[in-house]
Amino acid sequence: MGLKYNILATSEAGGRRGRIDLPHRRVETPVFMPVGTAGTVKAVAQDVLEALGAEIILGNTYHLYLRPGHEAIRRMGGLHRFMSWPRALLTDSGGFQVFSLSELRKVTEEGVSFRSHLDGSSHFFTPEHSMEVQIALGADICMAFDECTEYPAERSRAEESLRLTMKWARQSLEHFKTHGGEVVWGEELGGRKQSLFGIVQGGMYRDLRRECAERLVEMEFDGYAIGGLSVGEPRELTMEMIAEVLTILPATKPRYVMGVGYPEEIELYARMGVDMMDCVLPTRAARHGLLFTSEGRLNIKGARYAEDQGPPDQSCNCMVCRRYTRAYLRHLMQAGEALAGTLNTIHNLAYYLGIMERVRRDLTTEGGVG
Amino acid sequence: MGLKYNILATSEAGGRRGRIDLPHRRVETPVFMPVGTAGTVKAVAQDVLEALGAEIILGNTYHLYLRPGHEAIRRMGGLHRFMSWPRALLTDSGGFQVFSLSELRKVTEEGVSFRSHLDGSSHFFTPEHSMEVQIALGADICMAFDECTEYPAERSRAEESLRLTMKWARQSLEHFKTHGGEVVWGEELGGRKQSLFGIVQGGMYRDLRRECAERLVEMEFDGYAIGGLSVGEPRELTMEMIAEVLTILPATKPRYVMGVGYPEEIELYARMGVDMMDCVLPTRAARHGLLFTSEGRLNIKGARYAEDQGPPDQSCNCMVCRRYTRAYLRHLMQAGEALAGTLNTIHNLAYYLGIMERVRRDLTTEGGVG
Repeated sequence: MGLKYNILATSEAGGRRGRIDLPHRRVETPVFMPVGTAGTVKAVAQDVLEALGAEIILGNTYHLYLRPGHEAIRRMGGLHRFMSWPRALLTDSGGFQVFSLSELRKVTEEGVSFRSHLDGSSHFFTPEHSMEVQIALGADICMAFDECTEYPAERSRAEESLRLTMKWARQSLEHFKTHGGEVVWGEELGGRKQSLFGIVQGGMYRDLRRECAERLVEMEFDGYAIGGLSVGEPRELTMEMIAEVLTILPATKPRYVMGVGYPEEIELYARMGVDMMDCVLPTRAARHGLLFTSEGRLNIKGARYAEDQGPPDQSCNCMVCRRYTRAYLRHLMQAGEALAGTLNTIHNLAYYLGIMERVRRDLTTEGGVG
Repeated sequence: MGLKYNILATSEAGGRRGRIDLPHRRVETPVFMPVGTAGTVKAVAQDVLEALGAEIILGNTYHLYLRPGHEAIRRMGGLHRFMSWPRALLTDSGGFQVFSLSELRKVTEEGVSFRSHLDGSSHFFTPEHSMEVQIALGADICMAFDECTEYPAERSRAEESLRLTMKWARQSLEHFKTHGGEVVWGEELGGRKQSLFGIVQGGMYRDLRRECAERLVEMEFDGYAIGGLSVGEPRELTMEMIAEVLTILPATKPRYVMGVGYPEEIELYARMGVDMMDCVLPTRAARHGLLFTSEGRLNIKGARYAEDQGPPDQSCNCMVCRRYTRAYLRHLMQAGEALAGTLNTIHNLAYYLGIMERVRRDLTTEGGVG
């Protein structure tokens, strides 16, 4: 068995209070997933992530494939054991990072050839290879290999990109069906299996999005993601695409919007019926001194915080807001201290995870049984 | 009242199992004090330091004076409150950093003029000013302003340096006696006061060290430090100087050797009768991937650890050794991840603090009542 998804309550707006039973963790949804690119959520130790209530985090296939290598991770018992993270993990397909980070990439029908951003070495990713790597890493949830359509994109370009994504989705699924049971922890966890999600692309064309979603649903993935959003388009368009696709995806399976977003966005999408989201924003912004608070964004480097003895966020009860002042966090940034990144990240993650906790509570209270 | 020092047990070799009652903490000695240069033990959060059992840490007067500024820290309630560290603090005099970090420094009878390593601004430190800054920071223990004699130094140079150090010690004490009661937390802690330690210099000349120690003892400081060691001299010489000075310092007051050392050194000196030590070595080395273990030093970046699934130190029970593998720590270093510095530092501090814990246990068991 891969995942099991149960709806506990639903709202009129389409929001779902649910639960995804994964091999390593039962995850309460809607859920925000912190990004742990290279086997670490940057600057935060695993016990702190646990204390923050993170139930599932991301690993990036592209990064881990290049360093330390997926075969090495498999030999060491998979990514959970390698990074000592006993809760749930999701890996992306590697596609997005190949497009955004690597050099001299070339896309063909077969896959993508590229050069490593680390050492310039040559690599070739196919849907089958992405699956192999993800099976070696052993996350609870894997993602089909897709091509993320850029924005803006002409219709003909979006169509071509979509055709490739659907072809690769079929190949991904085929390979996964044959080899998905080979994950290193399968036996240890009573024969449980990894799950595979398909990714809906289609640029900003509603009909292409519909078509892609319908085809993927026919293929019967364990869950469905909406990709290619938050790539520069106006937010109304993001919401329109999500709303369109949600009408097609089956209610019985988890829905994941990739790479979003700002606090107000993740709340909005969760209330619309999105179950899972991830984004580097809270962690990356934290390292640059940008804090998300109940009163809006706060650039902690500002001189006006030099002697501000209030907590980063008056309404926050996280371990950083309980102990440290704005003045101290500002000082750490000014002094270039590593602790700045750590404390800022902890607060931002607490803030993001807190939003989802509140939405889950609301959905439970408002909602009828689904 | 400043500090109160009690000896609980002594050993034949001169070792003392003691207890220093400070305004913010009763510190068990011998003790190792992690260095928290700019109001943070680099890469480690305060709750982790508490969990590690750190009872007293250092702040650097030079760094905090330049940024965020001692007056700002005083206005915010002192360094304890600013950095949210409720346990004991010690500040150095600023002298050592002026010599090692600042530019265009010039020493006169009155003090030291220098340019900031941060922005090139001009500053002038006198013994009185060092005291003012340290009173503003509000550590439990302050250090007299001294000149650290370089190594090697001609006898005439060491004599001249010593003369200045003793003159400045007298001025430091005088100023401290008049203003030491002005610390910001004095009233809150029932009228308790900061303590002031004198610093024994004298280069590598036994008779100069003796003379300096005798004069400082006459002045009646709250404790005595031995400075100007670990500046490049052979270890036998370090030990000889410490042994010489220890015979002169009064048994009833704490003895502090500044800026040492390697694990085997701090154990050795603690067993000889040194009560307090500090060093950047465990924290700085950690950030470069050097771990101290029960089996010696280990450069975690080594390729041979790439798939080593053992803990950093088999015999260590710290939070890092309980959870993470050598392979994972190596990966974090390779990937330049911030977590590398954090986890390596936590282990090294646990190792250093563990040595002192063991020495204290031994001294209690072996020792008769002092």
